[in-house]
Amino acid sequence: MVFIKLVARHPFAPPKPIIPHLCIMPFKKIDQEDISFFISVSGNGYVHTDEEQLSRCASDHTEDLHYLPEVVVQPDTTDQVAAIMRYCNTHYISVTPRGAGTGLSGGALPVTGGVVLDMKRFNRILQVDSRNFQVTTEPGVITQELQEHVKAQGLFYPPDPASKGSCFIGGNVSENSGGPRAVKYGVVKDYVLNLEVVLPNGEIIWTGANVLKNATGYNLTQLVVGSEGTLCVITKIVLRLIPAVKHDLLMLVPFRSAVQACEAVNAVFLAGFTPSALEFMERDAIEWSMRYVQATGINLPPDIAAHLLIEVDGNNMDQLYADAEAITNIVQQYDTDEVLFADSHEQKQMLWTLRRKVGEAVKSNSVYKEEDTVVPRAELPELLTIIKDLGREFGFHSVCYGHAGDGNLHVNIVKAGMSDEDWNNKLSVGIRRLFKEVVRLGGTISGEHGIGLVQRPYMDVAFNETQMALMRSIKNVFDAKGILNPGKIF
Amino acid sequence: MVFIKLVARHPFAPPKPIIPHLCIMPFKKIDQEDISFFISVSGNGYVHTDEEQLSRCASDHTEDLHYLPEVVVQPDTTDQVAAIMRYCNTHYISVTPRGAGTGLSGGALPVTGGVVLDMKRFNRILQVDSRNFQVTTEPGVITQELQEHVKAQGLFYPPDPASKGSCFIGGNVSENSGGPRAVKYGVVKDYVLNLEVVLPNGEIIWTGANVLKNATGYNLTQLVVGSEGTLCVITKIVLRLIPAVKHDLLMLVPFRSAVQACEAVNAVFLAGFTPSALEFMERDAIEWSMRYVQATGINLPPDIAAHLLIEVDGNNMDQLYADAEAITNIVQQYDTDEVLFADSHEQKQMLWTLRRKVGEAVKSNSVYKEEDTVVPRAELPELLTIIKDLGREFGFHSVCYGHAGDGNLHVNIVKAGMSDEDWNNKLSVGIRRLFKEVVRLGGTISGEHGIGLVQRPYMDVAFNETQMALMRSIKNVFDAKGILNPGKIF
Repeated sequence: MVFIKLVARHPFAPPKPIIPHLCIMPFKKIDQEDISFFISVSGNGYVHTDEEQLSRCASDHTEDLHYLPEVVVQPDTTDQVAAIMRYCNTHYISVTPRGAGTGLSGGALPVTGGVVLDMKRFNRILQVDSRNFQVTTEPGVITQELQEHVKAQGLFYPPDPASKGSCFIGGNVSENSGGPRAVKYGVVKDYVLNLEVVLPNGEIIWTGANVLKNATGYNLTQLVVGSEGTLCVITKIVLRLIPAVKHDLLMLVPFRSAVQACEAVNAVFLAGFTPSALEFMERDAIEWSMRYVQATGINLPPDIAAHLLIEVDGNNMDQLYADAEAITNIVQQYDTDEVLFADSHEQKQMLWTLRRKVGEAVKSNSVYKEEDTVVPRAELPELLTIIKDLGREFGFHSVCYGHAGDGNLHVNIVKAGMSDEDWNNKLSVGIRRLFKEVVRLGGTISGEHGIGLVQRPYMDVAFNETQMALMRSIKNVFDAKGILNPGKIF
Repeated sequence: MVFIKLVARHPFAPPKPIIPHLCIMPFKKIDQEDISFFISVSGNGYVHTDEEQLSRCASDHTEDLHYLPEVVVQPDTTDQVAAIMRYCNTHYISVTPRGAGTGLSGGALPVTGGVVLDMKRFNRILQVDSRNFQVTTEPGVITQELQEHVKAQGLFYPPDPASKGSCFIGGNVSENSGGPRAVKYGVVKDYVLNLEVVLPNGEIIWTGANVLKNATGYNLTQLVVGSEGTLCVITKIVLRLIPAVKHDLLMLVPFRSAVQACEAVNAVFLAGFTPSALEFMERDAIEWSMRYVQATGINLPPDIAAHLLIEVDGNNMDQLYADAEAITNIVQQYDTDEVLFADSHEQKQMLWTLRRKVGEAVKSNSVYKEEDTVVPRAELPELLTIIKDLGREFGFHSVCYGHAGDGNLHVNIVKAGMSDEDWNNKLSVGIRRLFKEVVRLGGTISGEHGIGLVQRPYMDVAFNETQMALMRSIKNVFDAKGILNPGKIF
């Protein structure tokens, strides 16, 4: 096990509150010689020290956190990444890999300054192997572009995080992202067959093979998926694909009780249905999102407490109508208002936009913290009750929404009328209580956003010292000097 | 990295050829004091040193290999396993965990003597959580019994290795087993949510949480799945389940060309169908199996070179008939004989028995070696051609069969007329050539049987020294003294 010491933050970093327990090795500061080396590797025009680029890479979509890097390097090939890593490893320079910066746990924040390894030039889809239903891509491809590219060949890559229009597939792999379709199709890990990665010492390896079944040695692929850029730098990704699905139906079900909406979720599964999406939105979530995207056409009577957005998909339209009707009958056993069936592509798009924009809408509304709780699905009603009880006890307002079909509930805690004192000190006690309850229910503290920087102080709620020591030792196997994405997870 | 030394085999072990490169640390031999300790932990009657028990645990279903342990210990609780591991770790005694002994790569063979940790008393299904579609089970439960137990509650655990009637679920998790249904439903790893394990030093941890999505730290669960008992001892398993499927249809398609049968496999998928099983059997496979189980009722004209066994399943019988008809039309574009539809439960059982018994049938017929090649599905015809070419070059006869829908082809190499000299020396050169071709096609050397003991000499074909060093270092993190299942994988 590596012992790590507290070090002062980089002088370039703006005066933000230090994250509790942020203990990092002292790294070498970047000098002109380093810059010259990076330019020699990545080419002129791809190494940046100007305010604008440093500032761009100082934050992601996590709250309002900013950590300035010392330099932004934009390599174009695996060999360039290898050369940069080898150099930084030798010289004790910290490296923070960066995708599109849409992360929600601060995984891409360069908390120690150093190098931001900006992967935006890795934006090529290398090969669609339609015979084997596989795609090989670089990590800097936007997820939605990848999906559309394979769809044109009759193939389907299901994982669809809310940020799919801007996030990179490499970031999705690093965080093991989910999205609404995970409930039927699984998360990113269920599609990653093989990865080309650069180890911190500059060595390049593949983690597995391009096969659907693999019992050959330890599963390095799944160890890297979700490791948040702390073990190695992903440079190529082989994903399995499935045949494109032809049809879907979407409906929005208004409930007069949010807890009942959560109960209805499980009733759908217990009846034997697996929707392709089963999303929960508290009233505030849909109301704020409607205002944010200036949506019209949705009636929101004052007694509606929550909605379920339910999608079924498949190739047989008759079957879908039958399923949708059966599901409607199930949910209408609860206290619901009229179910809205999306009757056009535009209406489907509008409903999905409302759902996808909840996060941004909340962000635009108030200072906030987003938690990413996940429990066994049937425990969702109890989780929601606990959240509201804790809100009353700790004086915070929460807007809850998310992938109810997976038991994955996003809890946006908004500052609203909370005092700065309570927000900065008391809230973390409340979050800790929430996470303890989540773990008691058989769940854990992140379903799809990752631990990154902001959930790090709560890892001890999910794991004991033995588990943490194992993970730290694995980190140490890959990255003995701790130069890669320091300050994350541990 | 740990340097390991060659040590003489245990004097109890019968005179079998030493596996090439088998280099193991010297372990302490078991003495009366150790036995007394094991009895104090596991109870009287559960520690065995008699010939019969030692002999029972000296082999599994891998070829004809035998390695006698020094003692067989049968703990009943996690705490007992922890006490045994702590003791053996302290005293440098090797421990080989054992399930039902149905493995095909020698993972359960106690190659260093020492303790066999026989998990047969861990045979309780602890909880079926039908609200959350989960089951918590001990590892010593027979897979088929687990499947039937959850089926009685309307739930479905799909993975179905050929040995499902006798293998343990713990062994399935350790080897990341597959089976025919993997093509539609995935392998064991796709169902494991969480594991309670005992580390070699006796510490007990859970590897994850009982949730469908998890982005909380490194994926220790998937690191343990498929690690073949080399990292820790599994004592509890939480599996996700899915709703039971109501109907299936099964058909047997005879082909006049084995390569064409392989080509037809991919044609089915390219047309957008995902059967719940798509199995390939060379003529010898089905013929030997028919003889072995004394099956009647299947016509096997002399010009038939191979069969595909194709199953579709679902809840809508009309849809299944439509799918079966469409698939029949696809495969009949090749040179096929009449398709046999199983028209009764008994006929389905008979066809599945034929398929499941191929391995045993081959085993009963000749000395043999079984390889477990896996390639991207569309490369199957080329793989089959390569196998037959290598057979001609190296003078071996092969019987090929397996999970063609996954690209997973079992290659049973039968000794037949091969000289002992060629069998013992030349054959491994041929196997190495085969594996190199498999890797060239994007595949790897084991799809579902694991590396264990017998595929270990070929790991360098699949992995370079950097990859191997990573895996060895991970082993070292869990098991610094190397006492747990030594001689496997590495």
